[in-house]
Amino acid sequence: MKVGFIGLGRMGAPIAANLVHARHDVAVWNRSGEKARPLVEAGAILVASPRQAAAGRDVVLTMLADDAALDAVLSGEEGILVGLKAGALHISMSTIAVVTAESAAARHAERGQSFLSAPVFGRPDAASAAKLFVVAGGDPAHVQLATPLFDAISQKVFHVSEKPSAANLVKLCGNFMILSAIEALGEAMTLAEKGGVPKAKLLEVLTGTLFDAPVFRNYGAILVEEAFRPAGFAAPLGLKDMRLVSQAAEAGHVPMPLLSLLRDHLLQTIAKEGENIDWSGIARTIAKNAGL
Amino acid sequence: MKVGFIGLGRMGAPIAANLVHARHDVAVWNRSGEKARPLVEAGAILVASPRQAAAGRDVVLTMLADDAALDAVLSGEEGILVGLKAGALHISMSTIAVVTAESAAARHAERGQSFLSAPVFGRPDAASAAKLFVVAGGDPAHVQLATPLFDAISQKVFHVSEKPSAANLVKLCGNFMILSAIEALGEAMTLAEKGGVPKAKLLEVLTGTLFDAPVFRNYGAILVEEAFRPAGFAAPLGLKDMRLVSQAAEAGHVPMPLLSLLRDHLLQTIAKEGENIDWSGIARTIAKNAGL
Amino acid sequence: MKVGFIGLGRMGAPIAANLVHARHDVAVWNRSGEKARPLVEAGAILVASPRQAAAGRDVVLTMLADDAALDAVLSGEEGILVGLKAGALHISMSTIAVVTAESAAARHAERGQSFLSAPVFGRPDAASAAKLFVVAGGDPAHVQLATPLFDAISQKVFHVSEKPSAANLVKLCGNFMILSAIEALGEAMTLAEKGGVPKAKLLEVLTGTLFDAPVFRNYGAILVEEAFRPAGFAAPLGLKDMRLVSQAAEAGHVPMPLLSLLRDHLLQTIAKEGENIDWSGIARTIAKNAGL
Amino acid sequence: MKVGFIGLGRMGAPIAANLVHARHDVAVWNRSGEKARPLVEAGAILVASPRQAAAGRDVVLTMLADDAALDAVLSGEEGILVGLKAGALHISMSTIAVVTAESAAARHAERGQSFLSAPVFGRPDAASAAKLFVVAGGDPAHVQLATPLFDAISQKVFHVSEKPSAANLVKLCGNFMILSAIEALGEAMTLAEKGGVPKAKLLEVLTGTLFDAPVFRNYGAILVEEAFRPAGFAAPLGLKDMRLVSQAAEAGHVPMPLLSLLRDHLLQTIAKEGENIDWSGIARTIAKNAGL
Repeated sequence: MKVGFIGLGRMGAPIAANLVHARHDVAVWNRSGEKARPLVEAGAILVASPRQAAAGRDVVLTMLADDAALDAVLSGEEGILVGLKAGALHISMSTIAVVTAESAAARHAERGQSFLSAPVFGRPDAASAAKLFVVAGGDPAHVQLATPLFDAISQKVFHVSEKPSAANLVKLCGNFMILSAIEALGEAMTLAEKGGVPKAKLLEVLTGTLFDAPVFRNYGAILVEEAFRPAGFAAPLGLKDMRLVSQAAEAGHVPMPLLSLLRDHLLQTIAKEGENIDWSGIARTIAKNAGL
Repeated sequence: MKVGFIGLGRMGAPIAANLVHARHDVAVWNRSGEKARPLVEAGAILVASPRQAAAGRDVVLTMLADDAALDAVLSGEEGILVGLKAGALHISMSTIAVVTAESAAARHAERGQSFLSAPVFGRPDAASAAKLFVVAGGDPAHVQLATPLFDAISQKVFHVSEKPSAANLVKLCGNFMILSAIEALGEAMTLAEKGGVPKAKLLEVLTGTLFDAPVFRNYGAILVEEAFRPAGFAAPLGLKDMRLVSQAAEAGHVPMPLLSLLRDHLLQTIAKEGENIDWSGIARTIAKNAGL
Repeated sequence: MKVGFIGLGRMGAPIAANLVHARHDVAVWNRSGEKARPLVEAGAILVASPRQAAAGRDVVLTMLADDAALDAVLSGEEGILVGLKAGALHISMSTIAVVTAESAAARHAERGQSFLSAPVFGRPDAASAAKLFVVAGGDPAHVQLATPLFDAISQKVFHVSEKPSAANLVKLCGNFMILSAIEALGEAMTLAEKGGVPKAKLLEVLTGTLFDAPVFRNYGAILVEEAFRPAGFAAPLGLKDMRLVSQAAEAGHVPMPLLSLLRDHLLQTIAKEGENIDWSGIARTIAKNAGL
Repeated sequence: MKVGFIGLGRMGAPIAANLVHARHDVAVWNRSGEKARPLVEAGAILVASPRQAAAGRDVVLTMLADDAALDAVLSGEEGILVGLKAGALHISMSTIAVVTAESAAARHAERGQSFLSAPVFGRPDAASAAKLFVVAGGDPAHVQLATPLFDAISQKVFHVSEKPSAANLVKLCGNFMILSAIEALGEAMTLAEKGGVPKAKLLEVLTGTLFDAPVFRNYGAILVEEAFRPAGFAAPLGLKDMRLVSQAAEAGHVPMPLLSLLRDHLLQTIAKEGENIDWSGIARTIAKNAGL
């Protein structure tokens, strides 16, 4: 398929590589062109603007850091909206606000273009291994169209709604659930440790019984080893995501006291440990607050 | 093995039945003798006091509702402490406070008796199916001695510490983790539903990705179906357990804000819904607080 | 003094009236001109744009609903920035974000204009009675210049910093403190009432001892009488203010768990009671959560 | 009046001194007799047991550290219950649990003795100056009887209920309100300080406007000066009081999320700063959590 790909960060680069690897015809653009080099060597074409990455393509995919970055590549003379032909499809994989997805969908619709929200679960290593989970929101026909692309990058696709932004909401819920699990583990491990039970022992019991899921195994290991640096997913990014959840909660008048707690722990973590720490570093904050 | 068994409630009865079934010689006692009938028909002996249930036995097991009930069967002229011979072993399976376990261990030690803490994870159906998980704390020799009994009732034993009360702490941490997972699911499902995503759809994505564990599958189904009545594990029992966690946290000077939140949600649930609701009913409270 | 006044809402109208009453020469502008009629009858001049309200004046004062409204009257061809002469002073009395005040100060400075932040404490009745408290941030010379105006509308001026936005921060802290006092009163009154002590009795003891301050007397009476409607200061406005506090806290990496709690209670109050309720209506939410 | 006085701690000693000073006939008892010396020099009689302090007296007053201490002086062969004559009155001034007051009232009633709960607001300096506030619960005739005693030690008496324990509930609500005010001040001062506004400046605005009450002036000064040591009222005592509030809240099914927050901050303060810090030291914890 003729695709454009915009955003070659820690997630975008391996995703784009898998698309090239699956023999799609890929035009790439990134704010700093440097990062495109390995992809070009693998067969991608480097273009000079988001507009060119979209022009003449069936599909353009974006994987960007935040809402502002998405807006920047969509808008303006050199933006996707100008470049994408009528009927072509924009697949947005970034973790963005529900309202931002709604706005992007509306702007594409005005121009007769299509829009699919397809945020993903998985860290960069899962992206490299084509083992992501895709959460798709939009027209079933567009999901159908995107299937060869999703096949190249993921292990499973969940089509959650015909409304694109619903996929973003599910993604935000998922990130909230992850940090909630870390908070619960952090508090339990601190209590256990102060009572003489090693963290690893508690984790063994938990994952050996009711808590036998990747979220507890993966983050449990990080907490046991206190492997908070280098940051796999930095605390400020986690804070950004929790802010997006909070915006959705405020718009819907949903009190989420656990979310409030997570934000406060992220703020304390950044205030005390700096920005260069994994979001699971809230567990260090929890332990320190108990005098450990 | 010659064992005594005290406490034939929703958990104790099926556990005792499995011990009889495994051809152990079981003397049973319960506050209301009525409940012993099926066990007696299956081959158990009904005795008239905790003391008699302990007398002449290698091991006496207790599975009681709370700390006060354990103290009642331990103490006094007709209690276990008087009945149990020197060198014999008391295995306490109840979910009790850390300090209560420490006190029981000390009282047995004074009389040359042995004590093993062995609280379990699993609901009554798991007890019937001999699929419990045992969390054992105490002398390895005692765990060794108890192995034929644990084999008859559980699928796995975790020996977490030589200190009996450490097992109780781990059990309390586990219950805290379960209710934390319910809280997180409840908040995420409420946010999703108000945004147009059905709870079941969110759960499918979660359990299909990072949250593929019994705690999310089992309680997730309860939350989707709002199957809070009849109570599998009633909110006041959950509140009692969270109070025990809180006591341990206060003794160890461990701030646990998520625990505080869980307690407040249990209190609101009981205040609004009454005592006859499952502890997972906090999810109903969360939904109602958002106007659902 | 020749002044312009923009924003004739529930606070702005009585403030402007007091300026006219003190024989200042006042040009007024409001989005809906209707509200200017009583002022014109009292001697004010009605002009056709923010630009005209600023043009040829020594000082222009603004009292607007939110950050967007301030931006609207500042910007564009018909805005204050275009109208105000070099050296003239803009006094912003609205409750706005710290960053919005910083931006306004910078935009005025670029044009050689002056800027003073002067948010106020007090409800509309205090504004009518010229009994407001002014919290001023900015150059002492500008505070000096504004003194005749402040004298006409307030009982006291606090000059807190040479940085204008510091006054906005103090104002936000004050609103946070007020809602905190309401939360504390609401929880204590609920506990007392469920224990058989009438709310009024508790309030009498509190205000008769350590809590003898307007915030407890005024809001305490509202809580005792459950006089949440009509809204003196509506819950959505309170939520907006708490969002501004939260933005400042997030920017400064300040965990504020009490603030988080207040926001969740405002959200629940709006979700359950609708938008037409006083922000002190969180006390009703607190009482209902306890089954009252 | 012929009175007995039990408990010569930091509060009890000056109260007893004022009773002696007002020419009442006072028999004193304290666990460590040493502390009675100045009182004996002033005219009190030192007796050998709580029983003797009560025997032959019209009224016995107790001012003790906690519920256990009260139980200890009430019970046993040498206790108040045995010593006090029928019809005589026990006035309990300690800050104790609601259920403890109810139990004491019942035990006295069984013996035909009377009981008045009369906890006080005020620090030791207010006790010395006879400027306490008394919160009385019980029969109006008993309050009448106690009036000459209250006159000697306090500036005002609030008779809140005919039920003695209601006074204890009001006292606990008051202590909860005080710590709530400290929490709110602590969060606001931290936000202000990180934004460049000195704590003292914020306090000046608050106490100069809506927050002109002793609780803000007194604790505000402590927070500005960070005068947390020596402890006027130590954090572990504050934690004890908050536990009593929590017990009452749990018994009444009253969710009190602000109370939960206060307890967690006290726990963190004790874990990090040790036990020898004023309960207002939670403000230091709040500041440190923000990186100050």
